[in-house]
Amino acid sequence: MEKLIERFRQRDRMALSKLITMVENNSPQILDIMGEIYSPIGKARVVGVTGPPGAGKSTLIDKLIRSYRQAGHTVGVLCIDPSSIFGGGAFLGDRVRMQRAYRDDGVYLRSLATRGALGGLVPRIGEIIKILDAFGIDIIIIETVGVGQLESDVIRYSDTKIVVSVPGLGDQMQTLKAGILEIADVLVVNKADLPGAQNVVDDLQMMLYLRKESDWTPEIVLTEALSDQGIPELFQAIQRHQDYLSRSGLREFQIKRHREETCLYAVQETLKRFTEELVQEKEDIRNILKTVREGGINPYKAAEDITQLILDKGINGRW
Amino acid sequence: MEKLIERFRQRDRMALSKLITMVENNSPQILDIMGEIYSPIGKARVVGVTGPPGAGKSTLIDKLIRSYRQAGHTVGVLCIDPSSIFGGGAFLGDRVRMQRAYRDDGVYLRSLATRGALGGLVPRIGEIIKILDAFGIDIIIIETVGVGQLESDVIRYSDTKIVVSVPGLGDQMQTLKAGILEIADVLVVNKADLPGAQNVVDDLQMMLYLRKESDWTPEIVLTEALSDQGIPELFQAIQRHQDYLSRSGLREFQIKRHREETCLYAVQETLKRFTEELVQEKEDIRNILKTVREGGINPYKAAEDITQLILDKGINGRW
Repeated sequence: MEKLIERFRQRDRMALSKLITMVENNSPQILDIMGEIYSPIGKARVVGVTGPPGAGKSTLIDKLIRSYRQAGHTVGVLCIDPSSIFGGGAFLGDRVRMQRAYRDDGVYLRSLATRGALGGLVPRIGEIIKILDAFGIDIIIIETVGVGQLESDVIRYSDTKIVVSVPGLGDQMQTLKAGILEIADVLVVNKADLPGAQNVVDDLQMMLYLRKESDWTPEIVLTEALSDQGIPELFQAIQRHQDYLSRSGLREFQIKRHREETCLYAVQETLKRFTEELVQEKEDIRNILKTVREGGINPYKAAEDITQLILDKGINGRW
Repeated sequence: MEKLIERFRQRDRMALSKLITMVENNSPQILDIMGEIYSPIGKARVVGVTGPPGAGKSTLIDKLIRSYRQAGHTVGVLCIDPSSIFGGGAFLGDRVRMQRAYRDDGVYLRSLATRGALGGLVPRIGEIIKILDAFGIDIIIIETVGVGQLESDVIRYSDTKIVVSVPGLGDQMQTLKAGILEIADVLVVNKADLPGAQNVVDDLQMMLYLRKESDWTPEIVLTEALSDQGIPELFQAIQRHQDYLSRSGLREFQIKRHREETCLYAVQETLKRFTEELVQEKEDIRNILKTVREGGINPYKAAEDITQLILDKGINGRW
């Protein structure tokens, strides 16, 4: 483990990938490792990109990567693919297109599985962001199609949230209604050369009009990502939002909140592991569980007894 | 709360819905309520139905509901819609079609949100199944498009797992490859009147041939759900699998495993709540967290201190 941390500190990309995999697999060592590599500064800026399938998110991100590289920043991209069991048609093609970026040492691309093994595993986005940050990556872009649990985590951890729309998608209005606009910091209308782009802009403006007052008014940016149209404007819009976060003190507030959440998360995880160990080791707990299995006690009542045992006996040899 | 439990026991559907909502919202009272209403017998049979969007799952389930009603069973359907932010086009239409079933007191339909509030919430399928079971529902059908975390939970809690295929979907083979077939107990080829149905059957048979030896060989059923073709055969196939589970002792094994898992889940939840309370109440913990927020301690190191405090002082007035 020390060797792995050492290699990570020397910016070995294999070590970086290995650590992310350990988070994905919920490895028991990960808390200790995080404690070692944790960087309190939180230098990296996180940009979340969400939008319906077919909106051209991957191409857009590809162009953003180039813009950030030209500006001298290192970039990490996390692609979250919740539809990996079915479909995922566009996904592979997009990745191939983006492979080019892989050959640049300043770019790190990573797909995160969301289904995991039986028993279910939601990747801990927050931990993975902290790993990329500690590795020295300046800009972290998270791509998601906006589904479920992960969506919330992405929103929670993104400094700047980009929602991509596109003309001609039938359920565009569904998107607008679903409340995702309320969290957008920058609105992109991609494929703006398609008919109906102006309708989308009008819809978005109407939604913004209805939105709660806020110090930041989301910008609407028209792009044609394939031909680089509007990419500099998007880059600038993100920049302006990041400046606003710093200026307003929101960024500092967020950093403090994340520090506290990280700590509380680690407490919960440690207690969980500790409990799992006790359940394995302690005869009194094992006996209760045996009766539960046979139907002799209501599992919820038994849980109260076990919790009481754990809290009474604690950690230091009162067993 | 006692009134709610009382109404639930009198089979008040509003009380049933309310309890499920409480699970969805992770209400602090839910563990106590579960302890009260828990039925150790686990009478309900759970049928999981999964397959790509457009495979006709909702129509198929509609027909299954009728079959089970005709056989004198009460039915609960849980629809899991992970794409509720974007798309969900078919979803509304399908629900309207299924509304008819609502007017039957022996049928309970419920959509479960998977995105939840900020902070993310995966509905606890296991708890919701136990609530429906305690309510006296005989057959619980869970519909999912097979995405992410929830997929695993559905698999874990389904006695009989049905995978629906359909001719002409380009990514059919992706589906086959993704390992979901390995868990199927019954394979349905729906829309079997479409060209290519036999190809799908051939593909499935090839996959089954490659599958690990097992006492149960999944049956392949051709259906045209819209015109009721093959529905009785599907009903029978599910029945045969359920009989196999009982006969082989697998069902009893599963029930015991679920009892134990329920208990361990309740232990973890109770400890989590207990910790959350302590974090609010105890000055020593609040002080540590304050330093964490200000960047004065590594959050992971601080977590060790807090965990130690909690386990040392436990529950009974050692604070």
